[in-house]
Amino acid sequence: MTRIAILGSTGSIGRSTLKIVEAYPERFSIVTLAAGNNIDIAFEDAKRWKPKIISMATAEGAEQLRKKLKVAGLEKIEVSEGTAGTVKVATHPEVDFVVSAIVGVAGLEATYEAVKAGKTVGLANKECLVAAGELLTVEARRQAKPLLPIDSEHNAVHQCMRAGRMEEVERVWLTASGGPFLNTPKSQFAGITVQQALNHPTWKMGQRITIDSATLMNKGFEVIEACRLFNLPPSRVQVMVHPQSTIHSMVEFVDGSILAQLSVTDMRLPILYALTYPERIISDLRLDVGELKRLDFAEPDLDKFPCLRLAYQAAEAGGAKTIALNAADEVAVAAFLEGKIRFTDISRVIARVLDETLDRHPESIIEVLLVDGEARRAAQKVVQGTKVTSTGPALVR
Amino acid sequence: MTRIAILGSTGSIGRSTLKIVEAYPERFSIVTLAAGNNIDIAFEDAKRWKPKIISMATAEGAEQLRKKLKVAGLEKIEVSEGTAGTVKVATHPEVDFVVSAIVGVAGLEATYEAVKAGKTVGLANKECLVAAGELLTVEARRQAKPLLPIDSEHNAVHQCMRAGRMEEVERVWLTASGGPFLNTPKSQFAGITVQQALNHPTWKMGQRITIDSATLMNKGFEVIEACRLFNLPPSRVQVMVHPQSTIHSMVEFVDGSILAQLSVTDMRLPILYALTYPERIISDLRLDVGELKRLDFAEPDLDKFPCLRLAYQAAEAGGAKTIALNAADEVAVAAFLEGKIRFTDISRVIARVLDETLDRHPESIIEVLLVDGEARRAAQKVVQGTKVTSTGPALVR
Repeated sequence: MTRIAILGSTGSIGRSTLKIVEAYPERFSIVTLAAGNNIDIAFEDAKRWKPKIISMATAEGAEQLRKKLKVAGLEKIEVSEGTAGTVKVATHPEVDFVVSAIVGVAGLEATYEAVKAGKTVGLANKECLVAAGELLTVEARRQAKPLLPIDSEHNAVHQCMRAGRMEEVERVWLTASGGPFLNTPKSQFAGITVQQALNHPTWKMGQRITIDSATLMNKGFEVIEACRLFNLPPSRVQVMVHPQSTIHSMVEFVDGSILAQLSVTDMRLPILYALTYPERIISDLRLDVGELKRLDFAEPDLDKFPCLRLAYQAAEAGGAKTIALNAADEVAVAAFLEGKIRFTDISRVIARVLDETLDRHPESIIEVLLVDGEARRAAQKVVQGTKVTSTGPALVR
Repeated sequence: MTRIAILGSTGSIGRSTLKIVEAYPERFSIVTLAAGNNIDIAFEDAKRWKPKIISMATAEGAEQLRKKLKVAGLEKIEVSEGTAGTVKVATHPEVDFVVSAIVGVAGLEATYEAVKAGKTVGLANKECLVAAGELLTVEARRQAKPLLPIDSEHNAVHQCMRAGRMEEVERVWLTASGGPFLNTPKSQFAGITVQQALNHPTWKMGQRITIDSATLMNKGFEVIEACRLFNLPPSRVQVMVHPQSTIHSMVEFVDGSILAQLSVTDMRLPILYALTYPERIISDLRLDVGELKRLDFAEPDLDKFPCLRLAYQAAEAGGAKTIALNAADEVAVAAFLEGKIRFTDISRVIARVLDETLDRHPESIIEVLLVDGEARRAAQKVVQGTKVTSTGPALVR
């Protein structure tokens, strides 16, 4: 029995994890949950899973949930809140496996504490590796516990890596669907609307990650994640466009053999893999190989997708630059979604913030959060200085 | 240092193996060689590699080689001959690794003796598994030594298998280039010439295997080999057409993950893999992933390629039927190459012989050879009874 804590239980990865726990009651149990702001879902989950602790994002949320649980006669369930609550959820002594799926830097501290507490951690949160990957991977190595990737690309890489040893890896190939603008001419990029950018061809995801997929910044983050998870320099992590998203990534070994992982595009598969690793258990998440007709590949166009180039630059520098990359992107994407800047401004905002960020290597989560905050403020300033004209693209002044 | 015996040193796999030994002199050495009938190549190899023993296919060949070696002052190299000579080569006490690459049943006994002597065996010879796989795999398990496949498909499967455990395998997908007649209408099959059939789109190989690729019988043999190597029923070994031959095969695990192996179409890669397993060493056998454009897949057409269906039938029955399948195919292909029967008669000859073969499970190599001989005689009879008319397809009377 694997005893699970979910950080981000009301989000998409959280829901998929609960579906899996439901499907395999003999293998998995829920010990603790860290929810977001959705009281109704948190309440239903508390009733259904009877966690030891459930934590809400805010004090108000926690208070509301406490009241509802009392009315339902479930006051025994401890309700906690904020970062401290998430840390409690992540480090509960009965927890074996922590699913880290809180979007943004909010889950950083709890994930780090989980690793320090010797938990096996499944990482669905990009920020953990992009902003604090250097700290996390060192600590996981010290604990001799695996950091298991719960996203389709790195999970695929993890699977392919098993066909050889770490030091036999020549290169990792991350596949990218290419997003909705793969075939859009560069000249039309400035006019891309929010609605167009939210229309991802193969994956249904949250808004930020969908925009990040449209700019290929998401793939850039994945390059950084791969470098940290698999201890590779950025030059050994390459991106290839593969519109069907059937091959989730590939590993090239020194002898010239390349291993690829294929599957349906369903997040339950990497979650299940991480939860059961090193075993595999039967699922109905089947790719119909007989129906495979054609797989296409292309090199990414760095001129059309400058975010990917920026990510490689940040990856080379590491430390503060990757924190700033993530922070500036989050601010820029939010500004784009609010109509404050154009699609093409996203990379401009990030480039400016990267330029302003000094090379540093934070040695604690607090330092990471300080750099993150600085970069956010810098990005907000750039956004505020960006003028959207009615006739042309937005301009970074 | 891996000390190697090559059974079939003058053939294509033998030459590739020697190229590898040449490229990595610090890792590999040649202890013994079993050559075919080519005295000149055998003599050059003897001079270059100074094996302890070199065996020739025939007594005449051995005598000629002895004379040449004496003239060259190399009479210390022991020259042996025939099956006994090949067994000596395969079981030499200083040999660690035996490359089994003699085409046909001639290498059967030596390969079996190598396994019994506790050598690690790399199998490039189909007959070993198709005709005697049940015996070989049992003996290899008893010796706790791996049987390592040296052909691109099973080598790919072997690599993919490393991402899970044997009991977690749902299915193996063998890829097939489809051969030169993938897109030829069935109505034209009876008129296929020897020259057309020898024109394989992706691999340069010997004549028999090229014809077997054109009928898909080669893939049928591979289904049987996969069943035996990986202990799977035929229903769990499937074939998919993949004209580019870039994915060499795939393994589907019970959780729904599929691992695929991709590489250049160069036999040196699976040979190198087998020789160094479980390690991988650096080679320049590189697939340019950046140049990958498109991979296509289709289901095989069993109406056009009845040999594949016959192979599945034989695989289900096992034992004598698979021996007869191989023997009848060898006779039928030879008859086709000699213009005695038509392309479409190959499957008819084999079907007839399979019908006539009783279900038995030979328990020794001698019994295997007896069944093999019977099936060959039966196939010869069917071939002799086949009338090639000048106006229409050849007919099995």
